[in-house]
Amino acid sequence: MTAVASAASELRRRLPAERVVDDPDVLSAMSADQSAWSAVGRAAAGVRPRSSAEVADVVRVCAQLRIPLVPRGAGTGLSGGANALDGCVVLDLSTLDRVLAVNAGDMTVVVQPGVVNNDLKATLASHGLWYPPDPASAASSTIGGNVATNAGGLCCVKYGVTRDYVLGLEAVVGGPVDYGTAVRVGRRTAKGVAGYDLVGLFVGSEGTLGVITEVTLRVRAARGARPRTVVGFFSSLVAAGDAVAKVTAAGIVPAALELLDRACLQAVEDWKHFGLDADAEVLLLAHVDLPGAAGDDEAARLVDCFAAAGATWTAASTDDAEAEALFETRRLVHPAMERRGAVLSEDICVPRSAVPAMLAAIERIGAAHELPIATIAHAGDGNLHPLLVTPRGDSAAAAAAQQAFEEILDAAIELGGTITGEHGVGLLKRAGLRREQSADVLAIQHALKAAFDPLNIFNPGKVLG
Amino acid sequence: MTAVASAASELRRRLPAERVVDDPDVLSAMSADQSAWSAVGRAAAGVRPRSSAEVADVVRVCAQLRIPLVPRGAGTGLSGGANALDGCVVLDLSTLDRVLAVNAGDMTVVVQPGVVNNDLKATLASHGLWYPPDPASAASSTIGGNVATNAGGLCCVKYGVTRDYVLGLEAVVGGPVDYGTAVRVGRRTAKGVAGYDLVGLFVGSEGTLGVITEVTLRVRAARGARPRTVVGFFSSLVAAGDAVAKVTAAGIVPAALELLDRACLQAVEDWKHFGLDADAEVLLLAHVDLPGAAGDDEAARLVDCFAAAGATWTAASTDDAEAEALFETRRLVHPAMERRGAVLSEDICVPRSAVPAMLAAIERIGAAHELPIATIAHAGDGNLHPLLVTPRGDSAAAAAAQQAFEEILDAAIELGGTITGEHGVGLLKRAGLRREQSADVLAIQHALKAAFDPLNIFNPGKVLG
Repeated sequence: MTAVASAASELRRRLPAERVVDDPDVLSAMSADQSAWSAVGRAAAGVRPRSSAEVADVVRVCAQLRIPLVPRGAGTGLSGGANALDGCVVLDLSTLDRVLAVNAGDMTVVVQPGVVNNDLKATLASHGLWYPPDPASAASSTIGGNVATNAGGLCCVKYGVTRDYVLGLEAVVGGPVDYGTAVRVGRRTAKGVAGYDLVGLFVGSEGTLGVITEVTLRVRAARGARPRTVVGFFSSLVAAGDAVAKVTAAGIVPAALELLDRACLQAVEDWKHFGLDADAEVLLLAHVDLPGAAGDDEAARLVDCFAAAGATWTAASTDDAEAEALFETRRLVHPAMERRGAVLSEDICVPRSAVPAMLAAIERIGAAHELPIATIAHAGDGNLHPLLVTPRGDSAAAAAAQQAFEEILDAAIELGGTITGEHGVGLLKRAGLRREQSADVLAIQHALKAAFDPLNIFNPGKVLG
Repeated sequence: MTAVASAASELRRRLPAERVVDDPDVLSAMSADQSAWSAVGRAAAGVRPRSSAEVADVVRVCAQLRIPLVPRGAGTGLSGGANALDGCVVLDLSTLDRVLAVNAGDMTVVVQPGVVNNDLKATLASHGLWYPPDPASAASSTIGGNVATNAGGLCCVKYGVTRDYVLGLEAVVGGPVDYGTAVRVGRRTAKGVAGYDLVGLFVGSEGTLGVITEVTLRVRAARGARPRTVVGFFSSLVAAGDAVAKVTAAGIVPAALELLDRACLQAVEDWKHFGLDADAEVLLLAHVDLPGAAGDDEAARLVDCFAAAGATWTAASTDDAEAEALFETRRLVHPAMERRGAVLSEDICVPRSAVPAMLAAIERIGAAHELPIATIAHAGDGNLHPLLVTPRGDSAAAAAAQQAFEEILDAAIELGGTITGEHGVGLLKRAGLRREQSADVLAIQHALKAAFDPLNIFNPGKVLG
């Protein structure tokens, strides 16, 4: 019997038959995330569990057969973290999609990992509550995947990232305990320091330490008003960088502070003909969500910062439709670039003051490789997403893009930054991680992996290689 | 040669002589924290290092001689975490007290571990910046100690705890690398998810994983105005608990929300004769730090919440002196209780909605042991500090207090809470930790300790026992 047949039959022996997927087409569809450029292995089987106990059974089977287990949510990742490995079991957690408890009095919510981010937001809204993290994938990505990559988004400049909201979780683990043991780590309380921060270890661990089967999140009160938008067009990267610095220096923390470069604007304009300023080099978009007069004041101060930095045009939007249309431009950048070719999404983060230097480095790298790069950035966080575009099927261009991708990582490291702000390491950034972190720090990372997963079955080879 | 002489002489061989302390009186003074009830061992030597390199030397000596290393800052801890162990080297990091860099453009600051919390606040204020965590010990406790215990304070209800501000750190470690290796973990950027969250592991680890020698902190813009104060007196714990619930339900996040029970008020009144309402059972104190009209509005809404819950008296203070006097009452609780006897400080955290039930449990436990317990609480976080007071030298009362201490931990666990919100486990809460966490979770905690410190020299026996 082949390993593939053995995995599927052992899983069928333990689980209801309909949980197990071995149809090659279905299995193939659940074998890759959205990082078009990363390697996808051939899975032995897929499982769609309906409970934490079934997840535990799958972990036991994988441990027994010594085969890799690759957990996934909606597969919206951009680093290959959820890609299948040869001979693995793909564990699709999107079927565990229940909101288990909304505790308004405690300002917490308990969810299964497969709950979609925007679905959670909708459920909470009906209780007057709000879960802030808002990755671009929020309409389809799951909380489990958000936790696994410590997902960010637009509003983290003011409200923090996924890590800041995870209080506790249940995970099926191995290592110091028997493989297939479900443990509850963390807490339900606002504060706590009882033992090591195991929750923090799981957040951003990309499925390499165990399988998350339940998450307890901190939530906030719903925002009273829709955010209003402040916009600024600039004729140079330097001027836009100066505007961001002026916002910081003024002590303003907007609810979003996004940057789109000329290539982004051009791509959206060519597609949608919104009438965006064709001469602008950079667009800054800010969200203000303070209520009433305080919001008016903050919006006015943002306009002042933009103007003082030399904006060619700046204003606070006065109606929702106008504001929404401007942020729509931002959301359209990725699809607009995909119309032009295959898109390789970067995700680097630099100290705030290094944003202009990083943008200049990206321009330089793009020019050197004759590669169109459009950069969209969470400017207030120093988190940049250069999008590298190549004609589909052009292998020379693809090779140039991969070279540029690595050079952008090096430039970020050189500027005191990191190779990933919110997408994770997955497969695509393993070499970059080895350049960012010292051999000693990597030795510690490997020791942690070995302590949690001595059989090396939890998403092996991802992140650390 | 005794182990004691051997440690001191080996340290002198490696370090400038004046760094090494072996005078018994001086050594004794640096051998205990402020937890009067925990065991203090007899140290072999003390060291006051002047650099990270000297810390590394001390770690190497301890690894070579297999003797415990106990790091300490100002010794303001309340759980025995910094208490000397027999034959240990006490490493006093308060001598590493420089602010190394203030990066206003990046909103970060780099400090040595011995910088005092309030000194850092003062330095930052001159740059228009602010580091929020404000433990009661802020006038003397160090950032290194704050990081080691994940210290909280009053303003965490709005601004988060130490963990939320630590971006990166340097630590001298052992385990997967040679003992005495300095590693830099974490980042300087606002966001990042490159590898496991090693920073999060160190925060709250109470010196058991290595010695922190440098910390990179996120900072905020200075608050424009001094916070104003809203006060409410209540005739029952239930009414005060209802007031806190109403604040939560209204979506208000004050900059502090503190609770003092009757025993606190009585102790301060007996000492200072402020004219506090002698009939009140509970005082709630809130800080509002929104500027201008928004602050007026929030203060008015807090008064409404307090009134709706049946406050016997409630008002927003109109001048700074009055507001300051009310918060001064809070600060005086601990010294007022110490005038009455030996104080055993508790630190439990429960889900917000369980605060009234927890207060009732504390009353019940105090009555059962005929023990005066005064409770001060960060009510907005569900973090309570019952202060157990016994006549000095009364060993029967001390035994009763220790029994009550454990029963309070059990009551917190029963209500879904944790045995420590912000003080740490140290020596005093090791039994409680074993009751809060499952055997499986404890096995994982021990595996982490073993991976980082196979020789078991970093503050051995603390936290995990």
